[in-house]
Amino acid sequence: MENFSEWFHDILDKGNIIDSRYPIKGMSVWLPYGFQIRRYTLELLKELFDRDHEEVLFPLLVPEDELAKEGIHVKGFEEEVYWVTKGGNKELNKKLALRPTSETAIYPMFSLWIRSHIDLPLKYYQIVNTFRYETKHTRPLIRVREISTFKEAHTAHATKEECKKQVEKAVELYKEFFDYLGIPYILSKRPEWDKFPGADYTMAFDTLLPDGKTLQIGTVHNLDQTFAKTFDITFENENGEHEYIYQSCYGLSDRIIASIIGIHGNEKGLVLPPVVSPKHVTIIPILFKDTREKVLERCESIKKELESAGIRVDIDDRDIRPGKKFYDWELKGTPLRLEIGPKDLENNKTFITRRDNLEKNEYPLDDNLIENIKEIISQITKDMSSKAFKDLKDAIVYCENIEKIPELIKNKKIVVFSWDGKNSSGEAIEEETGYDILGIHKELDENSNDKCIYSGEKAKYLALIAKTY
Amino acid sequence: MENFSEWFHDILDKGNIIDSRYPIKGMSVWLPYGFQIRRYTLELLKELFDRDHEEVLFPLLVPEDELAKEGIHVKGFEEEVYWVTKGGNKELNKKLALRPTSETAIYPMFSLWIRSHIDLPLKYYQIVNTFRYETKHTRPLIRVREISTFKEAHTAHATKEECKKQVEKAVELYKEFFDYLGIPYILSKRPEWDKFPGADYTMAFDTLLPDGKTLQIGTVHNLDQTFAKTFDITFENENGEHEYIYQSCYGLSDRIIASIIGIHGNEKGLVLPPVVSPKHVTIIPILFKDTREKVLERCESIKKELESAGIRVDIDDRDIRPGKKFYDWELKGTPLRLEIGPKDLENNKTFITRRDNLEKNEYPLDDNLIENIKEIISQITKDMSSKAFKDLKDAIVYCENIEKIPELIKNKKIVVFSWDGKNSSGEAIEEETGYDILGIHKELDENSNDKCIYSGEKAKYLALIAKTY
Repeated sequence: MENFSEWFHDILDKGNIIDSRYPIKGMSVWLPYGFQIRRYTLELLKELFDRDHEEVLFPLLVPEDELAKEGIHVKGFEEEVYWVTKGGNKELNKKLALRPTSETAIYPMFSLWIRSHIDLPLKYYQIVNTFRYETKHTRPLIRVREISTFKEAHTAHATKEECKKQVEKAVELYKEFFDYLGIPYILSKRPEWDKFPGADYTMAFDTLLPDGKTLQIGTVHNLDQTFAKTFDITFENENGEHEYIYQSCYGLSDRIIASIIGIHGNEKGLVLPPVVSPKHVTIIPILFKDTREKVLERCESIKKELESAGIRVDIDDRDIRPGKKFYDWELKGTPLRLEIGPKDLENNKTFITRRDNLEKNEYPLDDNLIENIKEIISQITKDMSSKAFKDLKDAIVYCENIEKIPELIKNKKIVVFSWDGKNSSGEAIEEETGYDILGIHKELDENSNDKCIYSGEKAKYLALIAKTY
Repeated sequence: MENFSEWFHDILDKGNIIDSRYPIKGMSVWLPYGFQIRRYTLELLKELFDRDHEEVLFPLLVPEDELAKEGIHVKGFEEEVYWVTKGGNKELNKKLALRPTSETAIYPMFSLWIRSHIDLPLKYYQIVNTFRYETKHTRPLIRVREISTFKEAHTAHATKEECKKQVEKAVELYKEFFDYLGIPYILSKRPEWDKFPGADYTMAFDTLLPDGKTLQIGTVHNLDQTFAKTFDITFENENGEHEYIYQSCYGLSDRIIASIIGIHGNEKGLVLPPVVSPKHVTIIPILFKDTREKVLERCESIKKELESAGIRVDIDDRDIRPGKKFYDWELKGTPLRLEIGPKDLENNKTFITRRDNLEKNEYPLDDNLIENIKEIISQITKDMSSKAFKDLKDAIVYCENIEKIPELIKNKKIVVFSWDGKNSSGEAIEEETGYDILGIHKELDENSNDKCIYSGEKAKYLALIAKTY
């Protein structure tokens, strides 16, 4: 793909994903096919969350005074908040913010709900639209003014230890989610100057798009007691004493869909991970006058059979030549194509083509068809994931010389370097290279002899630097 | 239920449905149990819509100039629109409305998408939050400032005839939806002065809450070509000529959940229609020291068995006395309760209690259990619906004397009266009685001798009048 940005905009349009011609910059319409992908993506995530979270739904609007309570937090967002100031023709007494994220909407209610240690832990999530008045150049699904699919979880705990564990659990949950989608990631602890406003620390997942830029696709924040103190959220412990709770929160955005599309797609169109593909199988009947009815009947019966096993199937019986159907199927990224013509019925066989690698193989049209298809689908999931992870791994290189970093990044690399962990060095590295530090990838061993790429002093961490979205 | 309003607020709280203490008037938080009811309600509706509609998602914000384009429409909403005027600290060049409904967000895109007759019919729906700056007294789920679950469909057609048919189809779809929920309805054509702003005509569903007030729960609008002309939505017909499309739209709100709760509930708590109940069955193990493990094991195996048949099951194994569990189960409104104790295991029997009528019967713990439970669930659905429809039917009375209307309505009746169909008579009837005309219930036969209750002239319609929410 020569020009990723052009390809991406093109596929959003041709693939019936998003229409960005909506008359407000940075806000787009989800089209039917895109909406289906979004629906299955959410279903997968809900399944993971529902294991031990409860789903709730908070109002969109946040009163000015609640938003302003947590000083560091509001500072991080104040430039980006949309304000409702009028109702009808009247000025409102109190401005209302469109949530940029929901901490300040949710935590005042936590302080009403949480009374005792038996109310803890509490783990809620919601899927909502959030808003950022972006001044930078917007891009559909990547940098938007209405995040239409913000998935945010908020947890409350009795102890610091348990809260830290929850951060780890959330990281594991996100890994599982990304693995199903074949989205490769690199995890890092964001540097101090780039953590979530109000958080103790932020763990972040970045992926790599084909243009060599990293994209932040998920974050997990340990809020410790900062918000609990601001919003006065206390509980009575087993000894009858009142303590502040510990909190974590974690979120994902529309960028999940951007990654699914951007990482797996190719010149022929979308390549969808089976779990979120609106259809798993497109059956393409090869139609001739004499045998038309017979072939279509068989296609219908195969469809029903596969559907009864939970496989999502479409028959493309349009009156156009098969070549055009193949083209459309490739564009839509459905994992499998089955061709069924009169000869196949005679031989009781079908050709199955995989969208990810375009491999085409013959399979018997017998009782094993369901199992064979399930097997191929599961293989596709694995192969898409390992291919994508390999691409990411190949892009990560260690570098000892700060002067070489810009060249490497221009060649679409993510650079690992040794860092003394000081803010001053970090900021100097960013300034000298012109790129952003993603964060701390690994802590170095006490006995390591690594020297900081900038200061030459003993390094504490392996850190990541890249060109970011 | 002596005081419905008090009961309703109480059950929203105790039932873990909604918390209305959120610090903005008319905006509430969906709590976990309420959210589950909402989720299953939406799943049911999506299933019905997905038969021949496609789901999409439009941005929340509507630019001022688009909202203002359709004059009659904007006049109907201008007092109620929330306006975003600031982004960060900057005044926006163009004010942005929080959608009060989405016609003006969607139709500019229709004019881009619809080109030819082959693009028609087009049937889209979305489920979104919408906003009304209500100046009247707000009530959770009934009169709110953020409608958190607005389900709106928008269709486009090549002919007037087909559009009219779609209105009828939408009415049928809504009837089917209400029937599953056991929500009784009365259908009427809204009078001219109460139709949707911009519509040719509006068909509306009203239900009756226990306090004798009717609640509008669904509307279907024939927009004819009004919006098509405003937003310049044309298509090329088969003869190559450009014509305006015909449009319909129809919507449902959070009031669906208000009706489910208000109509079926009683002093003991919620009574949920099986289709939307988070659980269908609560198993209550009767636990004694010796047999505890054995009983719990059996409960688990029954749970698994039922779940494999698509029945949603909960085991209440808390260490509290069964009486308290019964109380909670009744409050939550789960359709069925199964009691299983050591004696039941010996006799291979269980007592099943229905929440709707509290009937308790013994059933064998054998292979027929699944079928028996499915049968009871289906019976409960039917019984809840017929009871509710009977209550509504009993409340509808015909009245020939305008002076008697207020007394009847005070006694929680919906009054049917004969009407000449003139706006002037209609408005006079509303003024004289102090109540609202819902609309035209039936057209009278040409040969009917009915006289208008107000003018004494030949009546054209049977119309409905009631105390409305």
